[in-house]
Amino acid sequence: MNHTIHAITHSKWDNSLQPIMSISNGDIITVETKEASDGQISPSSSEKDLRTLDFSRIHPLTGPIEVKGTEPGDAIEIEFLEFKNKGWGWTGVIPGFGFLVDEQYTSPIDLQGPALKIWQIDEKYAQAKFGELDVKIPIYPFPGVIGTALPYRGKYSTIPPRENGGNLDIKHLTVGTKLYLPVFVKGALLSIGDTHLAQGDGEVCGTAIEAPLEVTMKINVVKNIGLTQPIFVTGKVKEMEFNEYIAYPGIDSNLWIASKKAIKGIISILSKYMTPVEAYMLASVAVNLKVSEVVDVPNWIVTAYLPKDILGKEIEIF
Amino acid sequence: MNHTIHAITHSKWDNSLQPIMSISNGDIITVETKEASDGQISPSSSEKDLRTLDFSRIHPLTGPIEVKGTEPGDAIEIEFLEFKNKGWGWTGVIPGFGFLVDEQYTSPIDLQGPALKIWQIDEKYAQAKFGELDVKIPIYPFPGVIGTALPYRGKYSTIPPRENGGNLDIKHLTVGTKLYLPVFVKGALLSIGDTHLAQGDGEVCGTAIEAPLEVTMKINVVKNIGLTQPIFVTGKVKEMEFNEYIAYPGIDSNLWIASKKAIKGIISILSKYMTPVEAYMLASVAVNLKVSEVVDVPNWIVTAYLPKDILGKEIEIF
Repeated sequence: MNHTIHAITHSKWDNSLQPIMSISNGDIITVETKEASDGQISPSSSEKDLRTLDFSRIHPLTGPIEVKGTEPGDAIEIEFLEFKNKGWGWTGVIPGFGFLVDEQYTSPIDLQGPALKIWQIDEKYAQAKFGELDVKIPIYPFPGVIGTALPYRGKYSTIPPRENGGNLDIKHLTVGTKLYLPVFVKGALLSIGDTHLAQGDGEVCGTAIEAPLEVTMKINVVKNIGLTQPIFVTGKVKEMEFNEYIAYPGIDSNLWIASKKAIKGIISILSKYMTPVEAYMLASVAVNLKVSEVVDVPNWIVTAYLPKDILGKEIEIF
Repeated sequence: MNHTIHAITHSKWDNSLQPIMSISNGDIITVETKEASDGQISPSSSEKDLRTLDFSRIHPLTGPIEVKGTEPGDAIEIEFLEFKNKGWGWTGVIPGFGFLVDEQYTSPIDLQGPALKIWQIDEKYAQAKFGELDVKIPIYPFPGVIGTALPYRGKYSTIPPRENGGNLDIKHLTVGTKLYLPVFVKGALLSIGDTHLAQGDGEVCGTAIEAPLEVTMKINVVKNIGLTQPIFVTGKVKEMEFNEYIAYPGIDSNLWIASKKAIKGIISILSKYMTPVEAYMLASVAVNLKVSEVVDVPNWIVTAYLPKDILGKEIEIF
């Protein structure tokens, strides 16, 4: 059966919530999602709107959706079939949030925000001006948050990812991918939201291209496999890669600091063409952090990969 | 000019070493490299040979090569043009070395080694049997170690990567990529070795597909840019990606532990088809560790991506 599920939302994980819809094994559902701010950011917003965000409204999740016939110990298979966007999206730096929030980068460079970028979106691309560059990024939409109900009672923040999935922020959960989530309560109680149009591996500024979407998924039940956390099998993710990257290795004996060095290296290169906080946002939506090696004692490497193809022109690295 | 440089090697970084060859801006060099063990492992070796490795011979580096006209503050651009292999390579788990060396994985599963896999190599693929799977991996050769002389006197281990490059173990340093290394001493003093035929982002068991190669590179001098660490611009690395991956997110408040959870998840899946230590070696040469997110406080995600295409048949994930 096919179902359309409107954006009736909740913003905490709570396994006592009543389902807004019941579906069965093999059903295809089209789910409306709100963007992460629950309408506090719109195409006409400016950066000052980020100063007054009501955080209790962050991550409105559509659901929960009951999957009939599921019991604890089962899993649900979610195959992503289609994503429809509404022509816009946003990326922001929110004061007090993000990977570089505690950094004294290079005084007086300010990466703390607030800063906001509104993107124009068509079927294939997201476009926005970053300083002097006309940035054009292919979109690969995915849900930032998708999860089943937790095994324990109470209301829990949607910010951290957990054993139920939740705020995974994994960009490969796009068309063609099958995600497997554990079932911890009867009926599974699936919720989805915080939809993104594009994101780098890392999501360093804390936001991707945030956008309301319609997500079409096929749901299958996998009985009694005792899955304890999310796992997924991708579709054609080779398409998401670019031919050429500018890459900056972060070398350190601590992976967290290595990652920061790598991202700061890329921000430094981009900052010849835009403000540092714009570079930070662009890194969040397009730069991939890869763990190059974790064995060459005592220095590990995380490398930040900036796709050249999205920048609209050749840029200088020195 | 073109030069052929034979494998006259050293195994420490030492900026007082005399160059074995002098080259000029724009020269093309073909450099013979030994594999990482300096001949202690051969196509007829068995795992017991890993127990008696003489570590003082690890990383024989061909060089140093003087690049005429370089001074401290300059950089050298190294464009990788071609890699020729000798038809074999090896991957090993060396006791006391590797990402999971301290792990009590699941008693009595032993990931500690020694274990050795010899690969058959042709122009495009590396092949070996892992348990019941016939594994076939496209080769993308690169130098594990490539670096200039350090700015300080003395003899330094080649194991950790440093500001001079060195043991970067970054798999994208392959044909088409341009690597920029800082020059810290007059003449740059470039050395290269520890060549690999394939590696995953992470190199988790501590070895890739180790192999002697002939590496052809074009060397250009970039004057007076004050580069302080390596940076690179890739060629067509999209070719190195696969269409489909089995992916296991490691979720933790510590990136190091998140990475371990991710790799152990993949080893667990592969261990239905091979021994755990074979799975550990296969993860080292083919699984990519990506930093999915570093902002969803307090839980970060590093996801391990296993390419399905190399496994010779469809495998079950549950």
